Amino acid sequence: MYRTNTCGELRITNIGKKVTLAGWVQRSRKMGGMTFIDLRDRYGITQLVFNEADNAELCNEANKLGREYCIQIKGNVNERQNKNDKIPTGDIEIIVKELKVLSTSLTPPFTIENNTDGGDDLRMKYRYLDLRRPAVRDCLELRHRMTILIRNFLDSKDFIEVETPILIGSTPEGARDFVVPSRMNPGQFYALPQSPQTLKQLLMVAGFDRYFQIAKCFRDEDLRADRQPEFTQIDCEMSFVDQDDVINIFEEMARHLFKEIRGVEIPKLEQMPWSEAMRRFGSDKPDLRFGMEFVELMNDFKGVADFPIFNEAVYIGGIVVPGCADYSRKQLNELADFVKRPQIGAKGLVYVKYGSDGSIKSSIDKFYTTDQLKKVKQTAGAKDGDLLLILSGDNINKTRIQLCSLRLEMGDRLGLRDKNIFKCLWIVDFPLFEWSDEEQRLMATHHPFTMPNPDDIPMLDEHPEQVRAKAYDFVCNGVELGGGSLRIHDTNLQERMFEVLGFTPERAEAQFGFLMNAFKYGAPPHAGLAFGLDRFVSLLAGLDTIRDCIAFPKNNSGRDVMLDAPSEIDTTQLDELQIKLQPKEV
Amino acid sequence: MYRTNTCGELRITNIGKKVTLAGWVQRSRKMGGMTFIDLRDRYGITQLVFNEADNAELCNEANKLGREYCIQIKGNVNERQNKNDKIPTGDIEIIVKELKVLSTSLTPPFTIENNTDGGDDLRMKYRYLDLRRPAVRDCLELRHRMTILIRNFLDSKDFIEVETPILIGSTPEGARDFVVPSRMNPGQFYALPQSPQTLKQLLMVAGFDRYFQIAKCFRDEDLRADRQPEFTQIDCEMSFVDQDDVINIFEEMARHLFKEIRGVEIPKLEQMPWSEAMRRFGSDKPDLRFGMEFVELMNDFKGVADFPIFNEAVYIGGIVVPGCADYSRKQLNELADFVKRPQIGAKGLVYVKYGSDGSIKSSIDKFYTTDQLKKVKQTAGAKDGDLLLILSGDNINKTRIQLCSLRLEMGDRLGLRDKNIFKCLWIVDFPLFEWSDEEQRLMATHHPFTMPNPDDIPMLDEHPEQVRAKAYDFVCNGVELGGGSLRIHDTNLQERMFEVLGFTPERAEAQFGFLMNAFKYGAPPHAGLAFGLDRFVSLLAGLDTIRDCIAFPKNNSGRDVMLDAPSEIDTTQLDELQIKLQPKEV
Repeated sequence: MYRTNTCGELRITNIGKKVTLAGWVQRSRKMGGMTFIDLRDRYGITQLVFNEADNAELCNEANKLGREYCIQIKGNVNERQNKNDKIPTGDIEIIVKELKVLSTSLTPPFTIENNTDGGDDLRMKYRYLDLRRPAVRDCLELRHRMTILIRNFLDSKDFIEVETPILIGSTPEGARDFVVPSRMNPGQFYALPQSPQTLKQLLMVAGFDRYFQIAKCFRDEDLRADRQPEFTQIDCEMSFVDQDDVINIFEEMARHLFKEIRGVEIPKLEQMPWSEAMRRFGSDKPDLRFGMEFVELMNDFKGVADFPIFNEAVYIGGIVVPGCADYSRKQLNELADFVKRPQIGAKGLVYVKYGSDGSIKSSIDKFYTTDQLKKVKQTAGAKDGDLLLILSGDNINKTRIQLCSLRLEMGDRLGLRDKNIFKCLWIVDFPLFEWSDEEQRLMATHHPFTMPNPDDIPMLDEHPEQVRAKAYDFVCNGVELGGGSLRIHDTNLQERMFEVLGFTPERAEAQFGFLMNAFKYGAPPHAGLAFGLDRFVSLLAGLDTIRDCIAFPKNNSGRDVMLDAPSEIDTTQLDELQIKLQPKEV
Repeated sequence: MYRTNTCGELRITNIGKKVTLAGWVQRSRKMGGMTFIDLRDRYGITQLVFNEADNAELCNEANKLGREYCIQIKGNVNERQNKNDKIPTGDIEIIVKELKVLSTSLTPPFTIENNTDGGDDLRMKYRYLDLRRPAVRDCLELRHRMTILIRNFLDSKDFIEVETPILIGSTPEGARDFVVPSRMNPGQFYALPQSPQTLKQLLMVAGFDRYFQIAKCFRDEDLRADRQPEFTQIDCEMSFVDQDDVINIFEEMARHLFKEIRGVEIPKLEQMPWSEAMRRFGSDKPDLRFGMEFVELMNDFKGVADFPIFNEAVYIGGIVVPGCADYSRKQLNELADFVKRPQIGAKGLVYVKYGSDGSIKSSIDKFYTTDQLKKVKQTAGAKDGDLLLILSGDNINKTRIQLCSLRLEMGDRLGLRDKNIFKCLWIVDFPLFEWSDEEQRLMATHHPFTMPNPDDIPMLDEHPEQVRAKAYDFVCNGVELGGGSLRIHDTNLQERMFEVLGFTPERAEAQFGFLMNAFKYGAPPHAGLAFGLDRFVSLLAGLDTIRDCIAFPKNNSGRDVMLDAPSEIDTTQLDELQIKLQPKEV
């Protein structure tokens, strides 16, 4: 038997017990004829003691152990003199009688501690060592705990988990599909699913009225920060339900997770229409942990003075930053630079400082009178000592999105985005379509199967851009954790949708024929939703990135540097697949 | 609200209740001014009644409903006059007051009943309709139930589920890897995992001492009956354990599943050495539901008469088929043809009939005397009325495997392979290596990381073929449900293994370098096991094939005929991936 106990479980009640432990040497120190070793395993750390006076040879062996050696010891549990109240085993130590090296270790390339000295690249290359760090291990334990909770919750609600295939069909224009050449069907390719969307809809047609799956999804796209080419969804679909049924059940699931994992009670959630979220926060995923809601200042600024930027704007909005009227020129310049970053794209920042002494200072006081700026103060609800930051632009929503970035930046600066506070809400009534400048046509905001709001169907032909979708997102702390929609289950309505989206019948058939065909056999009304598991875990773990919630993540070039993947393959294998490399000319 | 109840839950206690149901029209019949409709959903069937006298218009509408229409009704629960005790809702019916067609259906291409008239191809093409059949639905519900049980069992034993990546590295000679061209890394490919073997070993190095994952695996090989290009494993690995620790925990898990799913108590299991299994049953996965163990007849037959076939044989063995001495010539000819099939490959079948009247008739009574055949009777333990079937050959194990096929055939013929009886055992002490005629070298029976039996390590150089592995298979009813091994965690021993397997150090490095490198950092002793989930489900579901335990299976050409995958992809997509088709010249 390799061990009688783990390194996390011995307590003062075990004193005198003869134990066998196995684990890794975390650190070792000599002190007055004694050698102390911290032995680590997945469950904790236990202090080992080797006494030179008792057994010089054994102590000598212990002194030769290097960091991360894997060892097994036998000994007796003893009460510690200097107790360590920072760890659960801190009251005891093991007086070691026998020592066996199970395997030696080279010096690890970085320290195996929560505050490691290893950089990202090194940690990725030696991920198996990085995973030994308790902080990373805890994330994966949390992820496991969450999936167990999710599965048991959904099981208790009659959901059944169905595995859908990973090797599916490539759809025309599935530009972001990863494809897999088939050896048995040369010249043909499978695709890896971007999501099980159509398959779960087929399961609804099949009568599985409550489906879920913790499903791997794949997207071959340029990796922005915090995207992975493969990611995991909690994918769900229900039949014979309306929007509120879906919202209720998954709100209950989320509440259960927050409670079980973080001990946080989530109240009944607000359902905020998308248009309101844009108006108040410039975002379809507002962070409600703090205020600084947008104030619209068109009436106060436009056309009342000779300031062309505002006079030409179609949107002028601001946020009141409490207590920041004393911001320095440097700080204000930083903010101006911030909003002008290419990824934000504002043209410039206007500020008004309402000093705590009643003074008013502004970047536009050449154009607007003190009285005008006092009126603005009233409109904005600013108080003495507050700083009003204003953006304007010629596109309402674009400007709002810029102002949203500024709001979040100010939230960060003021420390208002506490990771231990969770503010969730639903965003509803999304627009069904959005205009794509790139494609010069309307695109489905969600996907082409999303049900229009029945009240808005009459507008489908004349004002499609005003049609609201029966779609909903679950948002927490400014992060979209999940989203879904009611689906169209009527073939005629689906065909109208494709028309509005500019699909020819042929193209609709080629891309979604199997689904539309399935709908001809008594498709039930259905709706669904998917949560991003990686994001959900990282939110509950209090992390900024999803990477440490994934055992073996890829880097921003989509590479697994530990496995050195992707890599070249043999010509014989290419021949078998009947494909050939054809490097682009550079 | 689409429904107040499902179609499976209303009982006699609900009489008088006003209900709303939704589901599919299973069948409809008119009888004496009444229309009866069986309404089906995932949970069952409920009878609807439309009374012409009460509401002629409604009844008329009901008469227009076709099979598989999806409808919603409101009505009252009524006690049935002619109760149907075959279904749980058989005591009640719904007197319908309102009817709404949620969606119509074309006539389905086959009947949605357990005994469908649909052939395999049609059922695969319309899988979403096939899945409506209760028999198929039950398999997927069973699969879900099993995975919930497995996860909660392993969680209770401190295992944590860790998702390993699907896009991993292609290994040289990974001929059966599916590969995925990378757009971001042109000319390079990911591979899909044949199993998470090396990744789970890395997790052991990382200190996750109890890992599991219900994991998708992929193998691009010619599909024999009952193989799928993607399949699911219950993949497990443990650190600081010996063989018995692994066996005990997974035997307990299997016992739990058999008990919970089928109500069957599995006793403490036998651990049968591989050599014994081969000797007694000619198989490394013996079916213990019936006897007919092999009897070795070399001493009785070889060299005692002028029968060259036996005199030249290195193995002569038989099975005693109880009570079959009266088999006709036709039946015996069938058996002779059976063993000569190419997939079995025996040269011929010898029989001895020990008649219930004491007579002895044999296909070799020209060569052997009655006394000799009487002696054989004793050796074989045959009784009057039994049939002795004998195979011989020049390769011991090949002949045994042939005899095994015959034994299973006789078990089938005699109805001894009852699907409701489960006989499990462990096979242990596998040979570490097996000779490959194709490659003309020793191959790892399991995989190259399998630990040799420490007692046999001295034989590694001189007699590698005699070295036993610390490997174990879980077998039930002649099916290998799972298997695993202790792993080598010592770099030196691993290098010796690669030598015996004829790997150059360069090749070993190219193929498994990252794993061997990881082992240099304090690798713990570890061991693992994987169960085939698809097979386990199909065994417990009493099915002959895994196909109906999979929601969307592929056919024997690896095609999903519903999705029409794999398929051709756009040239633009090939260009982006910087690959080109290169059809083989035929």
